[in-house]
Amino acid sequence: MRTDPFARAVATLRGIGGQRVWSLMVSLFGDLARGEGERIPGPVLSSIMATMDVRPEAARVALHRLRIDGWITSVKEGRISLHSLTPMGRSESAAASLRIYATRDDLPREWQVAILPETAQMTPSALVARGFVMLFPRTFIGPADARAPDDALCLAGDAVPNWVRADIAPLNLSGEYQTLHDALSDIITDLPRADDLSALQVAALRCLIVHNWRRLVLRHPALPRALVDEDWPGHLCHGQVADLLAQYPRPALSEIAAG
Amino acid sequence: MRTDPFARAVATLRGIGGQRVWSLMVSLFGDLARGEGERIPGPVLSSIMATMDVRPEAARVALHRLRIDGWITSVKEGRISLHSLTPMGRSESAAASLRIYATRDDLPREWQVAILPETAQMTPSALVARGFVMLFPRTFIGPADARAPDDALCLAGDAVPNWVRADIAPLNLSGEYQTLHDALSDIITDLPRADDLSALQVAALRCLIVHNWRRLVLRHPALPRALVDEDWPGHLCHGQVADLLAQYPRPALSEIAAG
Repeated sequence: MRTDPFARAVATLRGIGGQRVWSLMVSLFGDLARGEGERIPGPVLSSIMATMDVRPEAARVALHRLRIDGWITSVKEGRISLHSLTPMGRSESAAASLRIYATRDDLPREWQVAILPETAQMTPSALVARGFVMLFPRTFIGPADARAPDDALCLAGDAVPNWVRADIAPLNLSGEYQTLHDALSDIITDLPRADDLSALQVAALRCLIVHNWRRLVLRHPALPRALVDEDWPGHLCHGQVADLLAQYPRPALSEIAAG
Repeated sequence: MRTDPFARAVATLRGIGGQRVWSLMVSLFGDLARGEGERIPGPVLSSIMATMDVRPEAARVALHRLRIDGWITSVKEGRISLHSLTPMGRSESAAASLRIYATRDDLPREWQVAILPETAQMTPSALVARGFVMLFPRTFIGPADARAPDDALCLAGDAVPNWVRADIAPLNLSGEYQTLHDALSDIITDLPRADDLSALQVAALRCLIVHNWRRLVLRHPALPRALVDEDWPGHLCHGQVADLLAQYPRPALSEIAAG
């Protein structure tokens, strides 16, 4: 009976959508083997994928694709393949991990408004790449340390009216965050404690949580804490994800291999 | 020969345009008799107007109009009429004098940006009445102590890029300020010193300076010092006007009456 809530959690988290297997595998390597020199033996990788209910053929295809894309590299040691992130895959994972594993308290505190001249050369998407969100044309909000264009009128943020939080929230993602929030709320209630799960199960569970979170959080800039509506589903998900990842700590690869 | 440069100054300052006589008389009372209980005897008023090259009939018509408008009130003392500002005229003059007689160093130092919500109820002109200028729709700049709408995102001003100064300068007035700047630059060179002019001449000169300045400066909000381009004709006029009014101090009414 112990595995029922776990199986239900896997089904719930896999059922949310956006679960391309290669992408799930990116989340897996990013969570379990992000460090230089960390390698996942083929049988361990297969076990984790199977625990997430991924068919072996699908896992093989995904691995093949990630090798072709230069994300993963594999070496043989005897009869065992050892898979690891390439330097490029490691660097991308490291960059993404700053967003994925940040707690709500890690969000930037100080913020600024940057107002652009009418003749601004910089595009809105270039500003978004620097961590800003557009409040409306020519007016952007971002962390105090985000680099504004040299010709911007920059103003340090202070009190925030509610309409600002509402206007800059990535509303296009609210529905998907709500879905994830509902799913996490659902599984949290009867999920076994970490001690009652195997290292393999914890690895699979973490991978599914990280994966569902990653595909949303990386689609918008990190808003300074003061600018996030506390009731926004994205903010609620953030709290749940950080709590779950703390409650189900990353197992060592050797633990998973040991069964 | 002594009066030639003075006559030329009068002609230059009267020639700028926008010289309706009743408006000139408003400037005159505002400069010479703004205080409660200050009254200008009819003959003194006539002399000053004549010194400004205003025909007696035009002065009489203007005085008549200002009495009808409730700006000036007159009482007879023997055969002499004594003219003074009404409480309304005094109150309007007092309000305007804060702008007219402020030196450049009196300009507000601290400034703010107020960003309005899309659904803002307050109109741009209501914000202008509170001392703000519009940078572009929804975004206003004003002195730190200007009262922003309650729902505005308010940010304390700091460094100012040049384009901001250019964008908020009242460009519609630049041409008229340039004309005044040229006129003042022209008369300053050979205008006799205050000691070499009669009290009557000083009164007339001040009135013409104040008048030409007043009709421009009251048409735009007082911009905080940091937001004014030092080369803007309005800023250059401001310096000239303040210097001239200091160099030609207001004569007492009794001095003028004494001839």
